Amino acid sequence: MSLKVAIIGATGYTGIELARLLLRHPKVEITAVTSERSAGEAFSKIFPAFQGRLDLTLEALDPSTIAKKAELVFLGLPHHEAMGAAKAFRDLGLKVIDLSADFRLRDAATYEAWYGQHSAQALLEETVYGLPELYRDSIVKADLIANPGCYPTSCILGLAPLLREKKIALDTIHCDSKSGTSGAGRSAKTELLFCEVNESFKAYGVGKHRHTPEIEQELSVLAEEKVVITFTPHLVPMDRGILSTIYAKATGAMDSKSLHSLYEKFYAKEPFVRIRPLGVFPATHEVRMSNYCDIGVHFDERTERVIVVSAIDNLTKGASGQAIQNMNLRMGFEETLGLL
Amino acid sequence: MSLKVAIIGATGYTGIELARLLLRHPKVEITAVTSERSAGEAFSKIFPAFQGRLDLTLEALDPSTIAKKAELVFLGLPHHEAMGAAKAFRDLGLKVIDLSADFRLRDAATYEAWYGQHSAQALLEETVYGLPELYRDSIVKADLIANPGCYPTSCILGLAPLLREKKIALDTIHCDSKSGTSGAGRSAKTELLFCEVNESFKAYGVGKHRHTPEIEQELSVLAEEKVVITFTPHLVPMDRGILSTIYAKATGAMDSKSLHSLYEKFYAKEPFVRIRPLGVFPATHEVRMSNYCDIGVHFDERTERVIVVSAIDNLTKGASGQAIQNMNLRMGFEETLGLL
Amino acid sequence: MSLKVAIIGATGYTGIELARLLLRHPKVEITAVTSERSAGEAFSKIFPAFQGRLDLTLEALDPSTIAKKAELVFLGLPHHEAMGAAKAFRDLGLKVIDLSADFRLRDAATYEAWYGQHSAQALLEETVYGLPELYRDSIVKADLIANPGCYPTSCILGLAPLLREKKIALDTIHCDSKSGTSGAGRSAKTELLFCEVNESFKAYGVGKHRHTPEIEQELSVLAEEKVVITFTPHLVPMDRGILSTIYAKATGAMDSKSLHSLYEKFYAKEPFVRIRPLGVFPATHEVRMSNYCDIGVHFDERTERVIVVSAIDNLTKGASGQAIQNMNLRMGFEETLGLL
Amino acid sequence: MSLKVAIIGATGYTGIELARLLLRHPKVEITAVTSERSAGEAFSKIFPAFQGRLDLTLEALDPSTIAKKAELVFLGLPHHEAMGAAKAFRDLGLKVIDLSADFRLRDAATYEAWYGQHSAQALLEETVYGLPELYRDSIVKADLIANPGCYPTSCILGLAPLLREKKIALDTIHCDSKSGTSGAGRSAKTELLFCEVNESFKAYGVGKHRHTPEIEQELSVLAEEKVVITFTPHLVPMDRGILSTIYAKATGAMDSKSLHSLYEKFYAKEPFVRIRPLGVFPATHEVRMSNYCDIGVHFDERTERVIVVSAIDNLTKGASGQAIQNMNLRMGFEETLGLL
Repeated sequence: MSLKVAIIGATGYTGIELARLLLRHPKVEITAVTSERSAGEAFSKIFPAFQGRLDLTLEALDPSTIAKKAELVFLGLPHHEAMGAAKAFRDLGLKVIDLSADFRLRDAATYEAWYGQHSAQALLEETVYGLPELYRDSIVKADLIANPGCYPTSCILGLAPLLREKKIALDTIHCDSKSGTSGAGRSAKTELLFCEVNESFKAYGVGKHRHTPEIEQELSVLAEEKVVITFTPHLVPMDRGILSTIYAKATGAMDSKSLHSLYEKFYAKEPFVRIRPLGVFPATHEVRMSNYCDIGVHFDERTERVIVVSAIDNLTKGASGQAIQNMNLRMGFEETLGLL
Repeated sequence: MSLKVAIIGATGYTGIELARLLLRHPKVEITAVTSERSAGEAFSKIFPAFQGRLDLTLEALDPSTIAKKAELVFLGLPHHEAMGAAKAFRDLGLKVIDLSADFRLRDAATYEAWYGQHSAQALLEETVYGLPELYRDSIVKADLIANPGCYPTSCILGLAPLLREKKIALDTIHCDSKSGTSGAGRSAKTELLFCEVNESFKAYGVGKHRHTPEIEQELSVLAEEKVVITFTPHLVPMDRGILSTIYAKATGAMDSKSLHSLYEKFYAKEPFVRIRPLGVFPATHEVRMSNYCDIGVHFDERTERVIVVSAIDNLTKGASGQAIQNMNLRMGFEETLGLL
Repeated sequence: MSLKVAIIGATGYTGIELARLLLRHPKVEITAVTSERSAGEAFSKIFPAFQGRLDLTLEALDPSTIAKKAELVFLGLPHHEAMGAAKAFRDLGLKVIDLSADFRLRDAATYEAWYGQHSAQALLEETVYGLPELYRDSIVKADLIANPGCYPTSCILGLAPLLREKKIALDTIHCDSKSGTSGAGRSAKTELLFCEVNESFKAYGVGKHRHTPEIEQELSVLAEEKVVITFTPHLVPMDRGILSTIYAKATGAMDSKSLHSLYEKFYAKEPFVRIRPLGVFPATHEVRMSNYCDIGVHFDERTERVIVVSAIDNLTKGASGQAIQNMNLRMGFEETLGLL
Repeated sequence: MSLKVAIIGATGYTGIELARLLLRHPKVEITAVTSERSAGEAFSKIFPAFQGRLDLTLEALDPSTIAKKAELVFLGLPHHEAMGAAKAFRDLGLKVIDLSADFRLRDAATYEAWYGQHSAQALLEETVYGLPELYRDSIVKADLIANPGCYPTSCILGLAPLLREKKIALDTIHCDSKSGTSGAGRSAKTELLFCEVNESFKAYGVGKHRHTPEIEQELSVLAEEKVVITFTPHLVPMDRGILSTIYAKATGAMDSKSLHSLYEKFYAKEPFVRIRPLGVFPATHEVRMSNYCDIGVHFDERTERVIVVSAIDNLTKGASGQAIQNMNLRMGFEETLGLL
């Protein structure tokens, strides 16, 4: 029998990506999709790509109605909206995988400094940060999973081996990240119009992007001490993909070969992390619409810096694919089910 | 009377951009265009955009023939090919603005380490590095001008105020640069096909791009001591534009306001450098097809790092526009003539 | 002394394009720019590309204030808003070039059938349709010029020789047109977001686009009898450019050579229409940011159909460039001034 | 037990798409991939997207070696190369699905007029044209399947109901088709470089594209008499997708409603053809990476013309997806297996 799931906030890019992936998943049935804006309309009317595939009617969010149809919900809501929904669903006994930022920061004070008030702090304790490569053991029993941010996924996976093995000076980390435009969401803003984005490249959120504390939180756990980084996101004129170019100074003797072998060993058993051969670096189209995080590494002897290039699809490994990976782990399905 | 100029190697992207800009220049006449591949064909047959505007026939390169028609030549040739042509034209008494890398590195040994043999070393001494913001006084009398590389233009202009004023630790500089695809040239390579570049983003030349020594040369002049940097170029799925995100650690007390005012003062009289208001950063479409270098700055108090974002059009300020700016200076024309 | 002009509705794509072109025009000074949304802000703050070039403050539209600063106004307003502004400016004695649809249709009833009520019908009589290739003699003395639509410009110029010379069956005309996304305007709509437009191609307004009656009006004038056509516009994932592929059945004996020579003769003296050599067809990038309309023709002997391919930049020849061409004619400037 | 298949000519865009889709197919194993250019290299080295998914070594084509590993081969070779390979594989008893043009035209003389000499004419008789919507009954027992061209798939499916039901005048058909750039193949040509294609739109092959006789052949079968059409292909700056806008004059009484219902009935049982609701037309991103052909229809009362808009992914329904649909039919698998 199939697992019944609902997509809450199904008309954003992560919602659509969840629908795309879940339709292909052999052990899941989508039983409800919600949208405040488009309640009453067929999902496939708004997204004709789904005609004949997912013709459910979008409904306004009512947790108790959903609870009758689904065991597990994916929350594709904006932050601040997600926290209330998560609480309602947990109270009704549903498993929750939240794709917003609301439960990613373990420390409510940090959340409030970067995002504003948090109204469901009690849930933070039971939350597990849903990055399987670091928290698989906890994810398998978590009922509230905070699905990582897209930039954090690429930066944390890019840096984990170096920090765990204490190979770099913690105050020298720079994460220069570039994202496709779907990362900015599906709301109608002038700055996201085709003619504003196309044929242009820019930095944004310089020195103040909200993914900074999330990245630092996880790097600090890995390093077992407080880590502060520079994180600069950029907007690329393409739909999907994140590439993070990461720099840090090596602390001891290092060369490209041993660096490369460190990464190969660290991720040897991971189904969704692939290390490129030495001298080769990933491009985002190589992970497009896949759940992989592809990584290339280089040690620059002239400056004694490690350079890591990490690529994901922001909507897949950076959001909905990883959410399904988490669902698979939680439900005891094969981890890669529906994702290859 | 118009200045007669020739475009040597006119069928690459810098050659086409020279044609576009020179046709609009009120004091210049294009009298010859060369191409080995397409000799005998009308320039406007290959580039129909120029039908009725530039119908000259492309000719194979013969310096003495060109010398009868032109006083000044722009060399849009690949490196190694440019050096011989430059020597031939200088021997014939023509002024030369070389858009290749052949004369950018003052030290022949450095050239040979990164590019291979140099057969016209004698000319290096008379060469002036054609970055007007730093070398205007020499450019006005130079007969061989080495037009800067596209990445170096964006990085050097982005860092000059900090180095001249000794505001940053020299061993902490990272230049993370992103370029449109025209920077890779107009030769038929599979990796440059539309379907390979579109919807993708990647790093390339990690730790070994040839613009590194050029950038370091000029930063060292500015700093008055040897500077070694990390420089990582990336390919953006767009035609034109370079954005460099530059990081360096401040050495003394600093804040965003004083940083911003440092840049405003340094470039106060420059016609082609614009400093964005504090908190605003340039996007490449804002300099598209223009000769501006636009810069935004930020001081990150959490990490004590300066972040500079610098944007140019790689074909204009990063190549052909700057070449014309140099021509204007050398010929005593108004510096901005034909470029606004 | 410069002609003083104002751009009314300066923050849409045609307004920005007017600014770009007028800044380069040697006989014009922009003295005012208006915007209801952004009144009080510097034009260059909203469009940093203009920093140092056009730093005027945007003002709310007040015709009598504008009348003190300008002799000629360009109206970049939505239809229905333009008609009132046009009347106000004409009453104040200013010359008006209207880029909206409000005065393009000579017959008020047709306007009202396709666009809704018309409140300034009295002005229709003095209006001249601003397509210089057909109405040059009237434009030179017109005080209210209705600048043609982008699609109509490409279709009418593509068909004019055939209709004037009565070479095609009038009931066999198909205009299949494709436009870059700037044609859809600069308002924040979900369907115009980068991720909705990129990597997609679609038809829209099938059988009911409002440019249909405008095209038919002008074709009917050319044919000296009523012409009804099929016109289907499409959206291309690019910023700028329109390409119209036009089909019609030849009425008498025809071959490609005579067809080509018909076009060459018809447009022989036109500065902005270029006929490609036989067998060659234009691409939109060949007219990008230029005021040209480039045309290629073919006679298909198998079906006895004429195929015409006509390319313009929708913002230049299809809007702002043509508006300046009209201004040049009206003011007695050289027709191409500022446009090459 | 899995069906063993080989991809012959695996490094072109249709080959890569076959690999992508076949890896997801539950009843197929890819046992060989060939490439003359890249023999000896791992498929996943050239296409890192397949790292860990398809690490087979590319081999030079040797039919008898392949015959030991595979029962069915997909030919992703250029025309003229495919015919020899097809013969060799048929002689060895393998089932062949040919994605080239070599066996699409039933009449060898027509092939030779448009493509040049045909050296395997004897095979034409046993060939089945692999458009399942028209030839399902023959495909299930065919050992040589000529997979349709991309443009023909979109045009034939767009016109089939009209022709079968004799609703249009046969001499009034216009197919105006637009394709993403992957349709032009993966060979290194200057005209296919990113900077040549991006931000441009053009027609090509005007009046002489080789898909014309293929479309006409199938339309003639449907109409039961000879049909001649105008077919004009265009290049869109995007990777994937074809949209065909098709025009024809109705012969009898018609309205949009009955037209729509004709299409709904005709395709009611087809798993991969979807008819949009009346007034809605498909966009290519709605079929991106899917095997659907989506169709919208309109009757234009003003001109009595039927307008059909038909969208496919040129690499999926237009090539590799349809090839797998054919394989499914031939092998007795569920028709949609691996394709949803």
